[in-house]
Amino acid sequence: MSSQKPHVKLFIPGPTEVAPEVFEAMSKPMIGHRQKVYSDLQKQIKEKLKAVLFAPNHMMFLSASSATGLMEGFLRNCTAKRNLSCICGAFSLRWHEIAIGNGKEADALNVEWGQPYDTNAIDKALATGKYDTITTVYNETSTGVKNDLEALSKVIKKYPDVIWGVDAVSGMMGAKIETEKLGIDFLVASVQKCFALPPGLAIAAISNRAMERAKSIPTRGYYFDFIDYAKYDAKDQTPATPAISLLNGLNFQLDRFIKDGLENRFRKYDEMAEYVRNWAEKFFALYPPRHASSQTVTCIKNTRNLNVSDLNKKLAERNLHISNGYGDLKEKTFRIAHMGELTLADIKEVLSVVEEIWQLNKNGNEKCCSACGGH
Amino acid sequence: MSSQKPHVKLFIPGPTEVAPEVFEAMSKPMIGHRQKVYSDLQKQIKEKLKAVLFAPNHMMFLSASSATGLMEGFLRNCTAKRNLSCICGAFSLRWHEIAIGNGKEADALNVEWGQPYDTNAIDKALATGKYDTITTVYNETSTGVKNDLEALSKVIKKYPDVIWGVDAVSGMMGAKIETEKLGIDFLVASVQKCFALPPGLAIAAISNRAMERAKSIPTRGYYFDFIDYAKYDAKDQTPATPAISLLNGLNFQLDRFIKDGLENRFRKYDEMAEYVRNWAEKFFALYPPRHASSQTVTCIKNTRNLNVSDLNKKLAERNLHISNGYGDLKEKTFRIAHMGELTLADIKEVLSVVEEIWQLNKNGNEKCCSACGGH
Repeated sequence: MSSQKPHVKLFIPGPTEVAPEVFEAMSKPMIGHRQKVYSDLQKQIKEKLKAVLFAPNHMMFLSASSATGLMEGFLRNCTAKRNLSCICGAFSLRWHEIAIGNGKEADALNVEWGQPYDTNAIDKALATGKYDTITTVYNETSTGVKNDLEALSKVIKKYPDVIWGVDAVSGMMGAKIETEKLGIDFLVASVQKCFALPPGLAIAAISNRAMERAKSIPTRGYYFDFIDYAKYDAKDQTPATPAISLLNGLNFQLDRFIKDGLENRFRKYDEMAEYVRNWAEKFFALYPPRHASSQTVTCIKNTRNLNVSDLNKKLAERNLHISNGYGDLKEKTFRIAHMGELTLADIKEVLSVVEEIWQLNKNGNEKCCSACGGH
Repeated sequence: MSSQKPHVKLFIPGPTEVAPEVFEAMSKPMIGHRQKVYSDLQKQIKEKLKAVLFAPNHMMFLSASSATGLMEGFLRNCTAKRNLSCICGAFSLRWHEIAIGNGKEADALNVEWGQPYDTNAIDKALATGKYDTITTVYNETSTGVKNDLEALSKVIKKYPDVIWGVDAVSGMMGAKIETEKLGIDFLVASVQKCFALPPGLAIAAISNRAMERAKSIPTRGYYFDFIDYAKYDAKDQTPATPAISLLNGLNFQLDRFIKDGLENRFRKYDEMAEYVRNWAEKFFALYPPRHASSQTVTCIKNTRNLNVSDLNKKLAERNLHISNGYGDLKEKTFRIAHMGELTLADIKEVLSVVEEIWQLNKNGNEKCCSACGGH
């Protein structure tokens, strides 16, 4: 990452740091979205996405919206009967709320927050035959849980009439996802996470099975109508005006990722995640079980009852910013994201400053009581 | 507008030229959308929008989407009974299709394309009492028609239960719109027109009346749920992650517009529009009646049956690009947009090159026959 003017470096799970060369790529002069020059851009992006998402036969939708919008689209386009919403945190809960907000029949299947899905419970629910879509989250950004897509795949493949949606908002490009092999029908992400672009663009890989289902549904809405998307996609266009500058940035990032080697990128995330996990276990505790801890955001149990808001105020003086816990977990946990352009050196820096501010090394490995506030 | 590297200059009705200083403003480092620094940005933008849209008591929604998305939101949030879709071209027709695509009851009220609305017909339709929303377009981008908002206002104000939506996609900031005084409940635009930003952000001003209606509607969807927007707006945030770089650009442009003086900006559009209209009448004819011709895009009847696609190929060699007709009007009309950063000098340049390529002056004021193709 090239040098950039001093600013508060973000260790939150999106938006994440954007490299100056990405902003430069985004600053290309405008082009008409019905011109060939635009179609060439979209075509290039699609082909690269098919490669990095291991989905040569999926369609690639590029939506001027956050991923939330396409997640709404998935439910409106693919649920004719009833949705099974698998919930393990705030963002998977949101997908359930989207179903309800659109008047879809949907049931919530919960696990305790901080835990990954219970695939046996999912199997049992799908066996009822009540559901034609299932919605799951890959990385639950609120709890730092990474669900096991292989295990989910094994269960869901037993039910060929069930269309499978995966929220990979903070996980896409954070690890290898063999979309097609796993049988994922809908894999969605926003670009302000592992793609390290400013927010405002969502990406979805969509299977032919999902598109077949959409054809059977009369009222799919408009802005996120998959059939309309497919119609324009055939011309390498989008139905509404696309987010051209973000697409220029995406094309640039995809080139970089492919040139640098995907495995190298994924290894970088693994290394950063391992470092944060070890640090967390030394001074605090991991919120999710270690084996289910996300490779892009680590959620740490605030076992010392320290004040996370105060920490961020002090970090701001050092041009650093981490994430408090999400919703009810606000002060019970805190989160360190290690995604996008961030490097192991960045991670080491922020954690050492946290150690210093909270004087963690003074107490060595002892996790001290809440009364003294860690001092 | 500062100098920019050579590129094809766009005279199409969006996306339009983006100034280098706007790209620079968009290249600010990322910030967290739940941080105070973000709320400060959104608050600033809202206050400036209320000023330039003359709507001090409306809410200002900033959506990471094209305007089409918020137009869908308007119908889902405000139509409980039945929508009257006033159609005078392809984009007002689209708003009707959005209603149908969402399973809303809606009737189309058509005028001949190229003509502005017939307010008597609208009055008659509303008098039936069947409708609780009316959707109208201000500038119909496909035909170059500008509808008379004052005249519409007089009619619609007679029906206090009817919530009024105005598609001002290519017209917002192209002329003064006294939103609140006119009684417009929902005024929407995309930023890739008169705001001269890259696409990916939509702006809507929404009245309290419209928000009251939304409260009475149970299934409003999710991504464009106005009640959810209002809830987050109270904290100067958006429900989903906002398009931060575009918002930085918008804030920059609003400062410029206010500093330069709105009246000066509107006068610039009037001057460019007048120049193009005179040129059109000299060599061709205007597609809409002159009094209803848009101030941001002029639609010209291709009375000489010249080949517009060929023209654009030749213009491309000179780094210029104009717009062919929309849909069925593809070769029957062509369009010159005069919006955003474009100046009268730009307009004079492109028109003189068109004259040269088509050898219009050889034939003087004579509009020659179709057989000779204008040569």
